[in-house]
Amino acid sequence: MTLAPHTNSSTENLKTLATAIRFLSIDATQKANSGHPGMPMGMADIAAVLFTEFLNFDPQQPNWPGRDRFVLSNGHGSMLHYSLLHLFGYNVHLEDIKNFRKFGSNTPGHPEFGHTQGVETTTGPLGQGFATAIGMAIGQEALAAHSTGLFNNKTYISVGDGCLMEGISHEAAELAGALKLKNVITLFDSNAISIDGDVSITSNTDVTTRFKAYGWVVTHADGHNYQSIRKALTWAQTQTKPSLIIFKTTIGYGGPMAGTAKAHGSPLTPGERTHVQQNLNWPYSSFEIPQSVYAFCKTAIKRGQTKHQQWQATFEKLPQQIKSNFKERLTHNTDKAQTALQELKKEVFCNKDYQKPQATRTASGVCVNTIAQHDLGFMSGSADLTSSNNTKPKNYAPINAENFSGNYIHYGVREHGMAAIMNGLSLYGGLRPISGTFLAFVDYLKPSMRLSALMAQPVTYVFTHDSIGVGEDGPTHQPVEQLAMLRATPNLHTWRPADLIETIECWQTILQNKSTPNALVLSRQNLPLVRQYTKENLCARGGYILCEEEGPLEGIFIATGSELHLAQKAQQALTKEGIHTRVVSIPSVEVFLQQPKTYQEKVLPKTCTKRVVIEAATSFGWHKIAPRGEFITLEGFGASAPAEKLFKEFGFYTENVIEVMKAQIMQKAP
Amino acid sequence: MTLAPHTNSSTENLKTLATAIRFLSIDATQKANSGHPGMPMGMADIAAVLFTEFLNFDPQQPNWPGRDRFVLSNGHGSMLHYSLLHLFGYNVHLEDIKNFRKFGSNTPGHPEFGHTQGVETTTGPLGQGFATAIGMAIGQEALAAHSTGLFNNKTYISVGDGCLMEGISHEAAELAGALKLKNVITLFDSNAISIDGDVSITSNTDVTTRFKAYGWVVTHADGHNYQSIRKALTWAQTQTKPSLIIFKTTIGYGGPMAGTAKAHGSPLTPGERTHVQQNLNWPYSSFEIPQSVYAFCKTAIKRGQTKHQQWQATFEKLPQQIKSNFKERLTHNTDKAQTALQELKKEVFCNKDYQKPQATRTASGVCVNTIAQHDLGFMSGSADLTSSNNTKPKNYAPINAENFSGNYIHYGVREHGMAAIMNGLSLYGGLRPISGTFLAFVDYLKPSMRLSALMAQPVTYVFTHDSIGVGEDGPTHQPVEQLAMLRATPNLHTWRPADLIETIECWQTILQNKSTPNALVLSRQNLPLVRQYTKENLCARGGYILCEEEGPLEGIFIATGSELHLAQKAQQALTKEGIHTRVVSIPSVEVFLQQPKTYQEKVLPKTCTKRVVIEAATSFGWHKIAPRGEFITLEGFGASAPAEKLFKEFGFYTENVIEVMKAQIMQKAP
Repeated sequence: MTLAPHTNSSTENLKTLATAIRFLSIDATQKANSGHPGMPMGMADIAAVLFTEFLNFDPQQPNWPGRDRFVLSNGHGSMLHYSLLHLFGYNVHLEDIKNFRKFGSNTPGHPEFGHTQGVETTTGPLGQGFATAIGMAIGQEALAAHSTGLFNNKTYISVGDGCLMEGISHEAAELAGALKLKNVITLFDSNAISIDGDVSITSNTDVTTRFKAYGWVVTHADGHNYQSIRKALTWAQTQTKPSLIIFKTTIGYGGPMAGTAKAHGSPLTPGERTHVQQNLNWPYSSFEIPQSVYAFCKTAIKRGQTKHQQWQATFEKLPQQIKSNFKERLTHNTDKAQTALQELKKEVFCNKDYQKPQATRTASGVCVNTIAQHDLGFMSGSADLTSSNNTKPKNYAPINAENFSGNYIHYGVREHGMAAIMNGLSLYGGLRPISGTFLAFVDYLKPSMRLSALMAQPVTYVFTHDSIGVGEDGPTHQPVEQLAMLRATPNLHTWRPADLIETIECWQTILQNKSTPNALVLSRQNLPLVRQYTKENLCARGGYILCEEEGPLEGIFIATGSELHLAQKAQQALTKEGIHTRVVSIPSVEVFLQQPKTYQEKVLPKTCTKRVVIEAATSFGWHKIAPRGEFITLEGFGASAPAEKLFKEFGFYTENVIEVMKAQIMQKAP
Repeated sequence: MTLAPHTNSSTENLKTLATAIRFLSIDATQKANSGHPGMPMGMADIAAVLFTEFLNFDPQQPNWPGRDRFVLSNGHGSMLHYSLLHLFGYNVHLEDIKNFRKFGSNTPGHPEFGHTQGVETTTGPLGQGFATAIGMAIGQEALAAHSTGLFNNKTYISVGDGCLMEGISHEAAELAGALKLKNVITLFDSNAISIDGDVSITSNTDVTTRFKAYGWVVTHADGHNYQSIRKALTWAQTQTKPSLIIFKTTIGYGGPMAGTAKAHGSPLTPGERTHVQQNLNWPYSSFEIPQSVYAFCKTAIKRGQTKHQQWQATFEKLPQQIKSNFKERLTHNTDKAQTALQELKKEVFCNKDYQKPQATRTASGVCVNTIAQHDLGFMSGSADLTSSNNTKPKNYAPINAENFSGNYIHYGVREHGMAAIMNGLSLYGGLRPISGTFLAFVDYLKPSMRLSALMAQPVTYVFTHDSIGVGEDGPTHQPVEQLAMLRATPNLHTWRPADLIETIECWQTILQNKSTPNALVLSRQNLPLVRQYTKENLCARGGYILCEEEGPLEGIFIATGSELHLAQKAQQALTKEGIHTRVVSIPSVEVFLQQPKTYQEKVLPKTCTKRVVIEAATSFGWHKIAPRGEFITLEGFGASAPAEKLFKEFGFYTENVIEVMKAQIMQKAP
């Protein structure tokens, strides 16, 4: 590994740059009358050294794959990042800084990925940036294991006291330690202040010892002394484990509230600004930055661009095969996997094993194995439930500190860290992460899943054990409200297939989709095949008519996943009695509701209001689909017993489904 | 503090007891054909020493307030606990053990509070028991600070590797360290195995160093050597900080799969049982326990009962005032607080300050201050947002390691840990915890909040900053799907009041309610008063008619919280145009839906289908209330800008509300 050729910039230049950062932050928050000046004022010196002497970046091509990553996990200090992006030539202009926190500006309150050039991930909810960045560093090692010499960038993570209090910091740091992620360099803004006051009121943790316990290396530096900052960053370049630099800093440095919680989240008054001007010798008016600062920053930009050129040259010299693999990865080409899944779908009715009742988690395992043989960027894992989630393809091996080429991650019992790391893998580029846990434990990872949706990252959450079908493990393991929670989340697609065919179709749709995360919800228990083969992917439209009898439509069964076969059986029985009903399968409610109204009307004609929804979860949300319907659903917390017993107890059996439909049909229209 | 008079039981007796525990666990899981024998087989020796020589309990009065708490955070090993409860005289009979994991039995798959005598909290989702038990230990210190000599019990927590991987373990352990919870004794079942294999595949954490970093004391012991176990437990009794005993154990001890992941979750075959019988010299048939084991356990029962008698004697000798305070706490008497809130409600229209527009979070702060003066058990806190959540009463002081009497907890940026600790405070008894964070961060604590609901604990979550009203902080801080998530959760009451009067009424209802957790959802931004004074608590019914004009009802506005005043203004404007509409406020959807059908029909008559729902959150779930309605809601993620701008951009302004209702009314019935 080669080191960046550092230029030891003059202290005077650095000081002016840091002061410029501080005043851009002061002025922007003052103009917005909102925001957090304290952190940027505290971290400006560290940022000045990092950006001028260490960070490799190219503002002309900000997404150059070999760039160093810089993640601001303490995202409330967004003005630190925006100031840097502005001064170092990104597409963030002084006008944008003046529009900080205004509607439609590219400088929102917290950094948002996809919204502002140079922002690598959305941060704000504390701890998320840290764990996501760990995912980027894993992504780097994974790509490095396949592409010689191309991926050796550093991942710099700025964290505050709050980030390190959050549990997710523990989960991600522990895994980073186990994987010896040598390219992680964490810059801890140790100002010892949180909103409620001194950190000492809620913590007497020795952070050095804590991170050493995880297998990290730790050093200390004075966050306001350039030589000390430089020394620590230089030290971090050559470590063989993830590193933490504990920078002693003063929140709101230079201001009248410096070193107190009051400096955190309030814009400065004009008088306070004058105070800082005097303290830091800054004669300029609001948003006025001397040209010398821009000139000084240019040196760093050139350094990064030289790095970029070297990287490009290395790339060009690579064997053709590696280059084309690399491009295939980066474009997420899934054509081969799609074809293979279509072949699998055809095979279902030629293979007796596939026709036996099987759990959809098993069906998904078949799909995952198929995809893994054809999709270069596929990266799988589980939060310590590998053999339950069926997420590990046979041809994959667990990655570990010595070998990152295996494409499978044992995340440990760390659902929250896992989800953030999946975001990081996806954001790094070239990887398509999927990973599993039980559906009940989606609660543990929701904050990171929300960011998947907000950032439109195509990560796939595999949630097995999706209802009272869990059986004996009981209510703590039986999801009830989780499907509603998933469906209510904007820009997330939730899929609950009913059998192997539907599972294949859901996987096909998931692979096609590059701008939303997906939640694939799967049964623990075996389920019969309900579908016939169709060339068309029926699930892709979210919902479709599974079966119906000719004749005047008297009622519609609406079901998903493990309850679909009950609807099918009930419909068949009713047909024998001369009652004409239809079964509609809705593997994805939100995708179905995005279809053209004409299609929705074809599947669920308004004229037929007799509807029975069957799903072993809360009815919450289903009234949109069945406004006057009946609901065979679960409104309590389940129980511990064999699954068949529970389905019977809670009304999920054919005779009951038939009765409920008959009662519906008999009922007078209101 | 006096120590328990330990009897060093003979090794032989302990060994027989431990073997009995192992075989009850083997036999129960075998009969259920489901469950986790590995952990009970590994921890039986530790449990045998703990229950016979250290734990103070009284199976005749299992809820005796001075008892030691024993929490099985590694709850999948439930058969360890059920075996102990059976052998030590609790209301768990051999018949119950035989019905392990059967429908309706008192021995469900994971331990469930309120379901099985002696189970202190529901566990299963890893890490929850640990953090909840930390809450019990805080509860103990808090009560000790008020009731001399009554509360010095120990809290013993059994944890596995999985519990310590979960982020919540970090949050709770860090706070326990800061508070120097000397009565916490954690028994770490260090078998170095998780479901996916050796813990080393996902962790190289030095747990000793990790916990020392938090300010804990740590020792090591051999989990299969009675002298070593005894020595460690004796050491733990006199520590001045929370203690962790790292017990080296073998999962599935005595079995053919001992020491491997295969021992974790599969019942033994008959052949494997025979193997263990030979290994451990156990000649008995299934569920057969020699009388000598019960006899041995009786000594421990007597020891605990003696302790109980001593405790009762101490109690009787206390001054009358302390005794009655104590009883008032334990019965959660909130009469005085209720009266004070009613007085406050009357005062609103006599006090100009109260009539000014104010945020409901401010209104809640007024209520919290009122309650805190009258409710002895009230215990408040915040996850580092004290001055935003307004949860700190003026007469409260933060608790700290030296003084636990202040009734206020600075939880730090640890939402998940906070929620579990609130459960623990509530379960300990005598305390009514409330605590705050931003509504967007409910995602961080959902797993513990679910347990509040499952355990029917009357804890109150105060969620401020409840919509795009957050403004500039942007989409990461703007909840959208969270209200739906809360409302979809069984046995949780969610409240979203619109002004000071509604906030008072919600608090009154919350205090009355002793069997569900509550989520109180509050605005950041100021809101006008919408309500008149009524003697009756209108919010208590979940929803009510806020205002209407005489005349044929043409449309109904349905709104909650910060959007209610828009509906009110629109209704007034329409009245002037001769259009008769009604405004229905629904501060709690789920409570409204629990009202008698006649009341619901009175408020929302079926004959009036022209309904407009206004809520700055997803419409998901509202179609049950307004099947053919229109929705002024938010289906995306919000944006960063001043709040007023956002409300305007997203359609939340009077003119739009009026237009939508007019369009509804004009529309033909379908």
